[in-house]
Amino acid sequence: MADLELSSLHASLTDRALNSMNFLNEISHHYPDAISLAAGRPTEEFFDLDDIPRYLELFAEHLRTKGLDEAAVRRTILQYGRTKGVIHELIARNLAVDEDLYVDPEAIVVTAGCQEAMLLTLRALRADAADVLLAISPAYVGITGAARIVDLPVLPVPDLDDLPAVIKRARADGLRPRGFYVMPDFANPSGLSMDLPTRRRLLELATAEELLLLEDNPYGLFPAAGIDRLPTLKALDTERRVIYLGSFAKTGLPGARVGFVVADQTVNTGGLFADELSKLKSMVTVNTSPIAQAVIGGKLLDCDFSLAAANQRERAIYATNLAIVSNHLAAHFPNGELTWTIPSGGFFVVITVPFVVDDELLTKSAQEYGVLWTPMAHFYDTDAPVNALRISCSGTTGAQLQVALNRLTALITDQLVLSTRSELDL
Amino acid sequence: MADLELSSLHASLTDRALNSMNFLNEISHHYPDAISLAAGRPTEEFFDLDDIPRYLELFAEHLRTKGLDEAAVRRTILQYGRTKGVIHELIARNLAVDEDLYVDPEAIVVTAGCQEAMLLTLRALRADAADVLLAISPAYVGITGAARIVDLPVLPVPDLDDLPAVIKRARADGLRPRGFYVMPDFANPSGLSMDLPTRRRLLELATAEELLLLEDNPYGLFPAAGIDRLPTLKALDTERRVIYLGSFAKTGLPGARVGFVVADQTVNTGGLFADELSKLKSMVTVNTSPIAQAVIGGKLLDCDFSLAAANQRERAIYATNLAIVSNHLAAHFPNGELTWTIPSGGFFVVITVPFVVDDELLTKSAQEYGVLWTPMAHFYDTDAPVNALRISCSGTTGAQLQVALNRLTALITDQLVLSTRSELDL
Repeated sequence: MADLELSSLHASLTDRALNSMNFLNEISHHYPDAISLAAGRPTEEFFDLDDIPRYLELFAEHLRTKGLDEAAVRRTILQYGRTKGVIHELIARNLAVDEDLYVDPEAIVVTAGCQEAMLLTLRALRADAADVLLAISPAYVGITGAARIVDLPVLPVPDLDDLPAVIKRARADGLRPRGFYVMPDFANPSGLSMDLPTRRRLLELATAEELLLLEDNPYGLFPAAGIDRLPTLKALDTERRVIYLGSFAKTGLPGARVGFVVADQTVNTGGLFADELSKLKSMVTVNTSPIAQAVIGGKLLDCDFSLAAANQRERAIYATNLAIVSNHLAAHFPNGELTWTIPSGGFFVVITVPFVVDDELLTKSAQEYGVLWTPMAHFYDTDAPVNALRISCSGTTGAQLQVALNRLTALITDQLVLSTRSELDL
Repeated sequence: MADLELSSLHASLTDRALNSMNFLNEISHHYPDAISLAAGRPTEEFFDLDDIPRYLELFAEHLRTKGLDEAAVRRTILQYGRTKGVIHELIARNLAVDEDLYVDPEAIVVTAGCQEAMLLTLRALRADAADVLLAISPAYVGITGAARIVDLPVLPVPDLDDLPAVIKRARADGLRPRGFYVMPDFANPSGLSMDLPTRRRLLELATAEELLLLEDNPYGLFPAAGIDRLPTLKALDTERRVIYLGSFAKTGLPGARVGFVVADQTVNTGGLFADELSKLKSMVTVNTSPIAQAVIGGKLLDCDFSLAAANQRERAIYATNLAIVSNHLAAHFPNGELTWTIPSGGFFVVITVPFVVDDELLTKSAQEYGVLWTPMAHFYDTDAPVNALRISCSGTTGAQLQVALNRLTALITDQLVLSTRSELDL
């Protein structure tokens, strides 16, 4: 007899979002020899263990130049620390340099990865059962999962043009939309970006509808070759409508697990929304590891606050890979049997095929073809079948990428034959 | 006009537990010159920044001896990692060496501090509005806060003997007690420990009542001079009744923010409760910083898995401080005007006084006497006035501790006079 019944545990544990993440993690463990086009991980090409002590020392030296004595330097890095973090000022400088975004460092909460930033934000905003989150669909599974953890339903917004109608319908149903989650730059999973007029229109709509925007920006520093970066929603935001969710996983080091949220909204208690998030954080993780923060702080100091400059090599790799993927698909599927997005940057290409792409097909791909990717169904909050898959151009490069694409092409070609045959059988 | 109304945010933000933590953090910032007997921080006496690269290298070398090539070593420490963590096997060895506790490493989830371990556990256990947590009272404010975050009411258990009655009453009220939170060793805030027969009786009761026990053990390695350590509940647990919440903040390094939970309960899906917690973790913090884990992993390797051995100097300091506090109080208050606990280890002494100890008195103490401590009221989940304060013997030593005790004695003496006077005024 089992000690615990799953049905007696929180509903999120039977939810597709959480099990989706779990399944995707597991399959890469089960097929370690399959090449992965699945994970949205940054390239490991320039990983160097020696960077860690170097970044720590840079941060320690920075504290010394700020006037801290040795005991205070040690305390800042090794002891329990400030709930909102110890590298908030450095992050504010980074946002100014890279994003032309000027924020009060006190409005920044440094988090245990961007995921915690999402969780804290949604926890604060979910007050009762009438609250809902709106999210662009398809959406990063992490926002759906975080919403599940705090019992916050997510209403999908398939297209920005649908947003007013979704808000109207939600309000008519007695629901209270607390915010709209978007990834305006090289989105996960779609790969798509919003143009500048769309960004401005969205901000205007947010004002008209009195809606908060949750802007998630993990890939903004990676435009494709020849593409100019656009201002973030937060940089365009003059009315504190935007909560900015930041990550250093792709631009700093994933192993530090350091992210942040800019929450400069005022609260009627007199403080900032960041201070409310800080109260929640004290009960979720107490504070973000100051050692991990020191690593990211050191990296920010090392690159003179420009992660855009520090990531030129990575950006070049991702841009090259996007072009390779795009050219490969064009060469192998010239007759319109499938379509794919041509993103202007970031990590992801979505391929739409004339057959259902599900976990079963992924398992077959891993087992028989030796290649992993992500069924797009995982990014929709419904059980409807989806004829598309996402591949990531970030983690696999050079000859490995070529082998992976050949394997994927073999799978797709075989499936095209099978699906044509089953059509004929009808 | 404010952007957000506090009343439109999650109820935890107006809760005493979260604001309590916030107030205690703030007051130490407002009075930086006050000596702190408040924070339950480990001593900084042996903090050494050079330990960090040394621990990282020890962990990297450990991975190499396990057969990982350099790319895999770099990936393990610097890339996204396994949701349940990468030092689970080292933690299992530490528990075997220090606690005579043998657990399947797969039943361990490494967390962003013990606070996240609490949050994940409570999130999993809180399925609906009938669920409640039982907790020893007074209790660590972090467990109450984590419960608030997941909307889980906490029923206080002032004495272990009350437990059956509290359970019975809860069930009669249609509530479902999901677990009982205890800190059997040198508890925060009471300083008290359970003797061995009590531990066995509690386990029997848990079996009889089909109740999970949540055992939190941050201070177990710090018995006072001449005191033998007792087995943890988890080491005595033969029926997987105990979820063990572990922390390296006091025994490893607080700045790593690494904790863990042992959840070896089976679930009717066929997996371990740890795997369900892992699913939640993927939506809270994705994974615990592998860099931070490597620091703790290196420390575990460095001390051959015995943190008890590695903390002999710290243990001696805390034991000495407990004795100093105890002797000081006995010397200055010989006539029974106040009473205090004489803990057999850990960080905390509770002083009971004949006047109300509230935040106002703490502010006065910080401002006029230059000493910080914690009103015991913060550890009770009610508004009832409490005539006691907690002082911590961990963070302040030597001459500083003496000065702090003198200041505290001055405050208490003045308050004793004031309270006598106000009695006479009646």
